[in-house]
Amino acid sequence: MSGGARTTRVYRGTFVHATSAEPLHISEDALLGVSSEGKISFFEATPDVDHLSKTWGFSSSEIKQLGPKQFFMPGLVDTHIHASQYSYAGTALEMPLLQWLNTYTFPTEANYADLNFSRDVYTKVVRRTLKNGTTTACYFATIHTDSSLLLAEIADKFGQRALVGKVCMDVNNGVVHYRETLEESKAETDRFVGELLQRNYPLVMPVVTPRFALSCSSCLLGHLGDVAQNNHLHIQSHISETKDEVNLVKELFPTCQSYTEVYQMHHLLTDKTVMAHGCHLTDSELELFRDSGAAVSHCPNSNISLCSGMLDVRRVLKKQVKLGLGTDVAGGYSASMLDAIRRALDTSKALKIKDPQHETLTFEEVFRLATLGGSQALSLEKQTGNFEEGKDFDALLINPLVPDGPFDVFSEDSTKVRLYACDDRNIVEVYVAGKRVVPFGEASPGSTRSPS
Amino acid sequence: MSGGARTTRVYRGTFVHATSAEPLHISEDALLGVSSEGKISFFEATPDVDHLSKTWGFSSSEIKQLGPKQFFMPGLVDTHIHASQYSYAGTALEMPLLQWLNTYTFPTEANYADLNFSRDVYTKVVRRTLKNGTTTACYFATIHTDSSLLLAEIADKFGQRALVGKVCMDVNNGVVHYRETLEESKAETDRFVGELLQRNYPLVMPVVTPRFALSCSSCLLGHLGDVAQNNHLHIQSHISETKDEVNLVKELFPTCQSYTEVYQMHHLLTDKTVMAHGCHLTDSELELFRDSGAAVSHCPNSNISLCSGMLDVRRVLKKQVKLGLGTDVAGGYSASMLDAIRRALDTSKALKIKDPQHETLTFEEVFRLATLGGSQALSLEKQTGNFEEGKDFDALLINPLVPDGPFDVFSEDSTKVRLYACDDRNIVEVYVAGKRVVPFGEASPGSTRSPS
Ligand SMILES: [Zn+2]
Ligand SMILES: [Zn+2]
Repeated sequence: MSGGARTTRVYRGTFVHATSAEPLHISEDALLGVSSEGKISFFEATPDVDHLSKTWGFSSSEIKQLGPKQFFMPGLVDTHIHASQYSYAGTALEMPLLQWLNTYTFPTEANYADLNFSRDVYTKVVRRTLKNGTTTACYFATIHTDSSLLLAEIADKFGQRALVGKVCMDVNNGVVHYRETLEESKAETDRFVGELLQRNYPLVMPVVTPRFALSCSSCLLGHLGDVAQNNHLHIQSHISETKDEVNLVKELFPTCQSYTEVYQMHHLLTDKTVMAHGCHLTDSELELFRDSGAAVSHCPNSNISLCSGMLDVRRVLKKQVKLGLGTDVAGGYSASMLDAIRRALDTSKALKIKDPQHETLTFEEVFRLATLGGSQALSLEKQTGNFEEGKDFDALLINPLVPDGPFDVFSEDSTKVRLYACDDRNIVEVYVAGKRVVPFGEASPGSTRSPS
Repeated sequence: MSGGARTTRVYRGTFVHATSAEPLHISEDALLGVSSEGKISFFEATPDVDHLSKTWGFSSSEIKQLGPKQFFMPGLVDTHIHASQYSYAGTALEMPLLQWLNTYTFPTEANYADLNFSRDVYTKVVRRTLKNGTTTACYFATIHTDSSLLLAEIADKFGQRALVGKVCMDVNNGVVHYRETLEESKAETDRFVGELLQRNYPLVMPVVTPRFALSCSSCLLGHLGDVAQNNHLHIQSHISETKDEVNLVKELFPTCQSYTEVYQMHHLLTDKTVMAHGCHLTDSELELFRDSGAAVSHCPNSNISLCSGMLDVRRVLKKQVKLGLGTDVAGGYSASMLDAIRRALDTSKALKIKDPQHETLTFEEVFRLATLGGSQALSLEKQTGNFEEGKDFDALLINPLVPDGPFDVFSEDSTKVRLYACDDRNIVEVYVAGKRVVPFGEASPGSTRSPS
């Protein structure tokens, strides 16, 4: 199945993952093989070890047995995170979106003209998200091409699967030091995409990134749609985060029936598009998403922190729109997808408190959104998202019994309860495409010590 | 001011606390002295060191200077936590309150007839909450007297300030193995209060604890009101957590105008009363709270997790009702008051999303609720809650730069931002009444290793 590559590692123990049939499936004594290419060569819930060892050429002494109560789960997929905003996570405490952008975001992003500053923050955010179990991240950088390329380089060196976007915004009257002209934005996007594709990183790709309709001219949006189409690229942006923003978009694009149509008419709504938020999308907009294969990135921490709105995920799923979770650092204050899981449940429960008829999401469903759902939202479900044979081995080894961990373990705990209480301390090993990326090796590039 | 007790320790550095005038005050180069009795002998924001050293008899070489970016904050006050439910925190994921009580709570609480089981869980919950910075906890135990006394003993030995309640419930038809008769409940309450008072622990006191109106007969409630009055005791219970519960109370107590009146007519609404939740209290009920001096314990994690409702804290504060925060383990899945702070902000923001006119709580206000507000809610504001001279030194030493901490530090971070991102790893020392209780000493009683 994996085309002849040798099986170089075999794990035995508990595996937890989502499938299309089941949002959270637990196999308590499964066997999983990883090929020399980092792919899952086999995954058997009730393994015939003799048969498998003959088929895949390993001896039973090579099998690594997981420790007591340990389990593997798929790597987490963060479908929306601003790497450039990581340095001020936790500041979005008291102001609405559009005000916060001018007060914190644009002035901070202007600093990324400086490559030393960029290297410091980008190294920290890649290390931190890997430590938090994010094996795949869809990043916004800033308008600066070289700095954005540096983010891609750092993700590659640390071994994270990533989509990296140089931000495009030619309409921004608020902040003098952080703007680009239409011509600059077009030229620099072309340079960014060209250079990044040429580097041919195995796991890091460019993503076309108009900031959002409010900060892009129609002309720029059109160019970006063309760039994406010509290079078969991913696309990311923001949509319908707040009501104020929706109203402003209506004023700026009076010929469009909806916010979604603005992106659609510029060829930015494709099956490789992921749009953050979507709190206020109408039914007909969701149908445009479904029909085009575009996805929504649900960022509950950010939506609550900025009082933007509450996305009814159940409604989006019923419309058969692809959906993943995002941290939206720094609108969201946490860079952990485990936080995104908890906040997605909270939002669903808040909707239920408002309307007792609302069918809340289950923990299992949200687990699926954070893994398999995210991979689908980023059109990367062939590579990652669960332990299906043939996919890359993107996995977290969870140890609930880690010393000085965040919770106490009682014998009756189920795997599900333990997963809910985990934090980064419990994520003892992280693998991307079969390669161990956490703990960081001695030889880790750009490796920095804890601040001193 | 501290009555002649010697000043045995002096700290210099950043102190963060709440006062009646200011919800979050930061003194960047303050001097604080701790007396041999564990009280704050002086606290000066702009200290005259020479003068203070003469007055309090210390030499400047004895001053302990806090490390870079470290700061002291007051210990956190958890005004509502079920010690007995700690073993199944994280299970309240998918069912409403009354169903969850019968499915998880009552069957688990029945286990506390076993003192070995009790010792294991109670040791873990006291250690865990201290590690999380909870210097004062208001505990529900179970109906079992000896087990509840054991919780008090463990809190005393670890040095936590605690109110401990033996739960009273003579009405409970659902669960066979977890009930007491009226006579048992009265007699055992008397025994519990008598024995605990006799032990004369310096920081641990009994609290009269009817579970809630639905599980207590009027006769039992009356007796408990008398016990509290005769011994000048604290009182705790639950009120108006869910709409279903409010409706059932109306049916069971048809002569009462409101849920609050049920407690009031049984003399259970005093200035030493704290009632958990109160999501659905009417204005006139809040006025009964204010007039009697009773307090509300706001437990946002629990209220969201069980879809119980959302307390409008702003409204409670405007009515001048005392209010603190609670984790309500295991209705809430987290035993950390730092989580309660974040969830209280979330709830306030969710109310704002619903009604843009809602005036959200600020981080500073919620910080006050978790410290000074909690001490007032438990009528312990003379002993704890902030760094006022004469109070006990209940304090957390926060180190944002701890190795392997939960977040990265950037030079521009404010103390406020850092506090928001902290978890137990950043709480490097915990003091209660001047005594260091975390890290746990080698000689810590009942000290247990990490599970193996
Ligand atoms: Zn965003
Ligand atoms: Zn409770």
